[in-house]
Amino acid sequence: MPDPEGHPSTEEMDLRTVLNALADPLRYGVVSALLSEAEGAARTCASFNLPVSKSTITHHFRVLREAGLVRQVDRGNSRAATLRHEDLDKRFPGLLDLIRANP
Amino acid sequence: MPDPEGHPSTEEMDLRTVLNALADPLRYGVVSALLSEAEGAARTCASFNLPVSKSTITHHFRVLREAGLVRQVDRGNSRAATLRHEDLDKRFPGLLDLIRANP
Repeated sequence: MPDPEGHPSTEEMDLRTVLNALADPLRYGVVSALLSEAEGAARTCASFNLPVSKSTITHHFRVLREAGLVRQVDRGNSRAATLRHEDLDKRFPGLLDLIRANP
Repeated sequence: MPDPEGHPSTEEMDLRTVLNALADPLRYGVVSALLSEAEGAARTCASFNLPVSKSTITHHFRVLREAGLVRQVDRGNSRAATLRHEDLDKRFPGLLDLIRANP
């Protein structure tokens, strides 16, 4: 079962859900940007400067979180996201390399 | 430029377009089924028994064709589809392995 914040375990991740999350260009851009950071780096949702409303940003990050692509952590009055690098490499070997090769 | 039937060249294939094509469960199922066939095997669109109308089937195969996932060939009064195995392995190494591991 996903944890209370909606993060699935590695075993619960589903490729079709992940592909669906990545099919949106803004969400793909977030994952691609996180991939270009040092492994484990956290960025606030606002730092991506997505050209959409705050509630839409919240929606996109929920889709990414529930697919297992990012982990969100509370930071006082903002939230930061990290890429679930190790979990994704374990569950879907080759996926992050594909995204890295197609930024 | 894609050929007159809408097949992109290997270089023209775009990962986000491919992910978008795969994000639909029926289309994912078609690709997954073609992967379980011998390489180069052709199947008619009707053989997949998709539970949707003929025009929707045509739509789904167009999305797959235009993403570069399948090649469609005319066979008299029906059309057959083959997976673009070699092209996909060349352009997106690891993608077909991911789908094979997640049928």
